[in-house]
This record gives sequence, C-alpha cells and structure tokens, in this order.
Amino acid sequence: MFSKSLVYVAILPLLAIGIAIFRAGDSTATASAAVSAAPSYDKDGNLLPPVGYREWVYLTSGMDMSYTPNSGASGHSMFDNVFVNPDAYRSFLDTGTWPDKTVMVLELREAQSRGSINLSGHYQGSGVMGLEVHVKDVTRFKGDWAFFRLKSPTQNGTLIGRDATCYSCHEAHAAVDTTFVQFYPTLLPIAQMKGTMSASYLKESAEGKN
Amino acid sequence: MFSKSLVYVAILPLLAIGIAIFRAGDSTATASAAVSAAPSYDKDGNLLPPVGYREWVYLTSGMDMSYTPNSGASGHSMFDNVFVNPDAYRSFLDTGTWPDKTVMVLELREAQSRGSINLSGHYQGSGVMGLEVHVKDVTRFKGDWAFFRLKSPTQNGTLIGRDATCYSCHEAHAAVDTTFVQFYPTLLPIAQMKGTMSASYLKESAEGKN
Repeated sequence: MFSKSLVYVAILPLLAIGIAIFRAGDSTATASAAVSAAPSYDKDGNLLPPVGYREWVYLTSGMDMSYTPNSGASGHSMFDNVFVNPDAYRSFLDTGTWPDKTVMVLELREAQSRGSINLSGHYQGSGVMGLEVHVKDVTRFKGDWAFFRLKSPTQNGTLIGRDATCYSCHEAHAAVDTTFVQFYPTLLPIAQMKGTMSASYLKESAEGKN
Repeated sequence: MFSKSLVYVAILPLLAIGIAIFRAGDSTATASAAVSAAPSYDKDGNLLPPVGYREWVYLTSGMDMSYTPNSGASGHSMFDNVFVNPDAYRSFLDTGTWPDKTVMVLELREAQSRGSINLSGHYQGSGVMGLEVHVKDVTRFKGDWAFFRLKSPTQNGTLIGRDATCYSCHEAHAAVDTTFVQFYPTLLPIAQMKGTMSASYLKESAEGKN
C-alpha cells in the first residue's frame, strides 16, 4: 500500500542515486499481467510487476541512507529493503557476479517508532513509499542494466532514462557489475573471494574512499 | 562473523524482550550437525544452527528497537533482521498462524553510517552481533515455543529458560501465537483477515495501546 499522504518523498536509495520522487496521482501504466522472477515487459517497454518479490532472497536493509550530507532531514524516516530473484542469487554465490535476467527490487518502507510495546528506535510499518527495480537484460538495455520505478507493487514500472544520475553513479561507484554489493554484507565476501569487484571500486578502496 | 571487539551488547530485540547479552569467549556447544529448516537438537537439547536462514523468507528489519525508553543509548546502533522458514511462512499465509516446527531467526547486525559513498543514515555491515531463534515444537516445549541464543551462525543455540522475561512478554503482548506479528508488515494483514490475533493483543489495541 502506498501512503496516500505522501506527496513528495526525497530519498537517495541504494539502487538509484539521485533524488527519487514519488508523487501520488501520477499516471502510470496499469499492470497487464503478472511476472515471476524473470523480467517481462508490456508492449510499451514498461516492466511488469515483480510479483512475489517479498519471497525472494533478502540482501539487506538500510535506514535513511543518503549519498549527500544531511539529506535525510525530511523528518520522515524510511527503511529500504533489497531483494533479488533466487536464481540470480544462486548464480552470484557461484560466480561473484550477476547473470542475465537478474532482477533486484528496492522497497522503500515507512519507519515507525512508537507502536505496540516499542518505545524507541524504528520498525517497519505497512506503508510502502515506493519501489525501484534494477534489471539486467543484456539484449535489451545499453550497458546491460536498466532502472524502473513503480508506483505500487501491482503497477507496471516506468523506465528511468539513461541520462539519470543513477546510471552514472552505479557505473562509477558500485562494487560489482553496477550494483552496490558493498552494502550487501553476505555477498561482499563472495565478490572479494571471486575477484569480481569493479576496477573503479577497487581504485576508490585503494584511495581510502571505501 | 561475530564482532571480536564486542564484549557486551545490550539490546532489546524483537523476539526476546529483556537484555540480551552476548559475551565474546563464552563457552558454547559446538555445532555437531547441520539442520535445514526443521528444528533439530543435540543430545543436550541445544538447537542445531539454522543453516541457510538468510535464504528463508524475510519478515522485517528494525533498528535500535527498544521496549524501554532511551535504552538504545549505548552508542552502537544495530539492525535486527527477522527470517522464518519457508514452510511455516506458507502455512501462515493460509491460516494466519504458525504451524508446528516453525523456526524464526532474529539476526542482530551492526549498523554503519559512513562507508563507500554513503554519508548519512545507516546500512548493514558485516558484523553479526548475535542470533536468537524462536522455535515452535509442541511436543517438546511447555507453551509450545522456546527461545535459543546462538553465539554465531555456526554454533549450537543455548535454550533460554522459561523464567526469562522474553516468554512472559511475548505471551502478554505479541499479536499472534506469542510472536510479534504486529511488527511484520506483510503478515499483520493476514492475521487480521484470518482473525488469529491474540485476546491480549486485541485488548491492548482496544485500549489504544497499539
């Protein structure tokens, strides 16, 4: 469920650096069919919803992550949960990188603080503030990957254009194959062992930036 | 990997209310065999490690959750990630409650703030600060459930005694079958639909406590 009270939510998520703005009421293609784990598209190139992604393999969560200082000062805390389709996960364990047809889902979920017996810290509420999907489809996308933004888990995802900063940032800073494996604690050791870290990430690490 | 620098970590996790203290160097039974999703025990009643729990179904994460005010002021932020074995999850979707042999894993993981290109907020690091497992085994445990504490993902879990406050708190405040489904955003609507909320939780809700 998307928060109806949300007009603008500014966040810098894991998958797509840059301000991801979710606006209630935008027109968005309606889902015309369900997909399982493999990416599928409608005739206009919109991504069909990643049905059942909550049962895929969980990679990590962050809270109010930001790539610019103090940008989390909106007063509305959020978690981001990252899931990947199980076939791609198994392949990563074997190879240290992602196979074709990898689908990664970033779920932005409201953080709540006081509720039931919880008195401090944060837990995850029912409101999904947005979904972004990072898809590897080598015959379809320049640079092998594309980002899609979904307004809800049941609506088709809109392609984010190649000129968006998410692409250039992932290419410049992500540890493995344009994905932020440096933030996925169970996968980072696999990539290190398999030697699949990107040259740019290794350079930044050598310079003490990681 | 457990943090070697950790001597005492005080936290009030989702599964076990009460101060969970993990102490580096405690003697703990060594794992003698692997288990899959169903709970298994050694001859002394210690729980064999929940092998592969990171590939089970993810339920939620919290950060610095506490059931007492200001108890998160230790200066060391942590995430808690909750996983459940897939068979139990499927059963919950059908019934709104947990079947026998349910295994829920609470993973306490260090929160980091500055690393790679992240500048604010928190992400999950490589350090696992502790594991607690909540097991439903109706022929084995009084009250059907028991808590175990593991010093690492590969060591056997020590049974937490029935006099610990985790048991009484879960029985008094948890939404479904002594589990904190009120903090699992995708399962709470199922329990509401199936009418499986506990009488005590519904009473607290009616009194405005939830």
